[in-house]
Amino acid sequence: MSQPETKVSLTGIKPTGEPHLGNLIGAIRPALELVDRFESIYFIADYHALTTERDPELLRHYSRSVAATWLAAGLDPSRTTFYRQSDVPEIFELMWVLSCVTGKGLMNRAHAYKAARDRNLEAGEDPDAGVNMGLFNYPVLMAVDILAMESDVVPVGKDQVQHVEYAADIAGSFNHAYGDTYSFTIPEAIVPEGTSAQTLPGLDGRKMSKSYDNTIPLFLPEAELKKLVRRIPTDSTPVSEPKDPDSSAVFQLLEQFAAPADAAETRKRLEEGGLGWGELKNQLFEALDEHLAPLRARYDELMEPGSELDTVLAEGAEKARQRAGRVLRRVRGAVGIAGSA
Amino acid sequence: MSQPETKVSLTGIKPTGEPHLGNLIGAIRPALELVDRFESIYFIADYHALTTERDPELLRHYSRSVAATWLAAGLDPSRTTFYRQSDVPEIFELMWVLSCVTGKGLMNRAHAYKAARDRNLEAGEDPDAGVNMGLFNYPVLMAVDILAMESDVVPVGKDQVQHVEYAADIAGSFNHAYGDTYSFTIPEAIVPEGTSAQTLPGLDGRKMSKSYDNTIPLFLPEAELKKLVRRIPTDSTPVSEPKDPDSSAVFQLLEQFAAPADAAETRKRLEEGGLGWGELKNQLFEALDEHLAPLRARYDELMEPGSELDTVLAEGAEKARQRAGRVLRRVRGAVGIAGSA
Repeated sequence: MSQPETKVSLTGIKPTGEPHLGNLIGAIRPALELVDRFESIYFIADYHALTTERDPELLRHYSRSVAATWLAAGLDPSRTTFYRQSDVPEIFELMWVLSCVTGKGLMNRAHAYKAARDRNLEAGEDPDAGVNMGLFNYPVLMAVDILAMESDVVPVGKDQVQHVEYAADIAGSFNHAYGDTYSFTIPEAIVPEGTSAQTLPGLDGRKMSKSYDNTIPLFLPEAELKKLVRRIPTDSTPVSEPKDPDSSAVFQLLEQFAAPADAAETRKRLEEGGLGWGELKNQLFEALDEHLAPLRARYDELMEPGSELDTVLAEGAEKARQRAGRVLRRVRGAVGIAGSA
Repeated sequence: MSQPETKVSLTGIKPTGEPHLGNLIGAIRPALELVDRFESIYFIADYHALTTERDPELLRHYSRSVAATWLAAGLDPSRTTFYRQSDVPEIFELMWVLSCVTGKGLMNRAHAYKAARDRNLEAGEDPDAGVNMGLFNYPVLMAVDILAMESDVVPVGKDQVQHVEYAADIAGSFNHAYGDTYSFTIPEAIVPEGTSAQTLPGLDGRKMSKSYDNTIPLFLPEAELKKLVRRIPTDSTPVSEPKDPDSSAVFQLLEQFAAPADAAETRKRLEEGGLGWGELKNQLFEALDEHLAPLRARYDELMEPGSELDTVLAEGAEKARQRAGRVLRRVRGAVGIAGSA
């Protein structure tokens, strides 16, 4: 399926928090479409999460849950490489090598670190208060994730472009020093065009986002999903009165999940009056549940202990380690580490 | 040989430059004596050298050469664990975990980094000019070297005590966060008492040190050793005149290597007059060559391609990986990385 000329794309998935509908529409689905254009690699960045997640039970749960989510959403392990970062020890050895060609100045200017420092300075604290070396080194690890897979393109949001630029920069430094023997592929960020990503509304009409606490969790049991939809705030316009579909979060959500003809019909009834919020919410629940029920079933199956999930990740780790191992052997040879090819 | 109560000692060996007589007397011999008091572990810090050594051929050569040196000097692989850092990938994965519990402030205050920053500031440069992330992260890697082996004691020079304190500090942070599940051994620095280390003179009478360019390389071929000894500067006191043994670098060196009775006799002859510099130098050459010839032969043997050296290091790596692997499995479990025990 992947010819030598096919470019390699890499997508990192950070396992923090329960996935919601906004993630599915805005991030997971677009990322899964890459498989048609690239040799696609996906990985769960569990060791990244360790910079902030100190609860081992949660970290373990989220790592497993996010893997089950992507598989349930349609990730096809036979057409992709899908692995957990922590299953590829080569990454961490490469990280040391690349640290030695990474200027500290670059890290000083990294967005996440600068933001932490600015917050500290504003609060009158030491600039590095509460900053751990995981956070400070984070961009190097990101670079290694990208470079160890010899990725050509990394689809990212605008706020993540710096990470890919850093990876290109670090690869450039290595190639400058050791390029006679081995050269890393220089990666490029691709920022997806505006999609439904930006526009999927949450329960309050603002963009669906964990930080607004307005999300629809992806794998709610049916009864809870129904309750959640019923609780979406609406105004007190009587059933018979006309309503503006475009200012209703319920309708906007419906439009994403109902068949286009059904959505158009509902829009007409709202504008004419005679369709109440209760009935609209029932329509939304039905549309969502039809859409999510198969995903939920697959997710629940995968989350069972000893499920297929473990085999899938083990096979993915094998593929990823072959790739990273090939790179590491050549890097060791280039820098002069003994016992290397 | 090692009972459970035996404390574990760790000695790191940085592979930079050719070993000289001062290293043998001041560092290698005292470190090899640890084997009588501790379960002794020695490792070649080849990945450390990468922060400054950009020549792959040199790095490869020094890593091999330093291993051959320690074996030739008497390191007994059957009574110790002796490995190359780069053969233990577990170290680098542990490094990421420990980075996440290491405050950046600690690294800001590390001696080597502060010295680099001060030099830059004095030169009117950006404080981080020329500082790479290998240098900045160096103390974390040192800590991991120590902690991955569950070392109890680390024999170091005074200028290295901070590294062991940092390792203890980082272990403490980890234990505070995850100690219910796994606790690192808190290591302790031991600073050897003043030994001949401080006093072995170089060719110019000052302490023998690479930075004074006054060393006697350990493995010079016999003819070159003879030439080197002949070139030691002396004054023009005639043969028949009395000479002060204690202000002669040649005599001070002789005293370290000749039999005590012979050295006492020579001292007497110098003080009385009648012993010329030429004869004294011959005595020194004979004493040195007698001492070094067997080491040189063993070293040359070990430096042959495909020698026993490779087997010794492979067996050492196996032992070290078992130790580090045991620690890593427990650490993964403690922090919540999946697939861990």
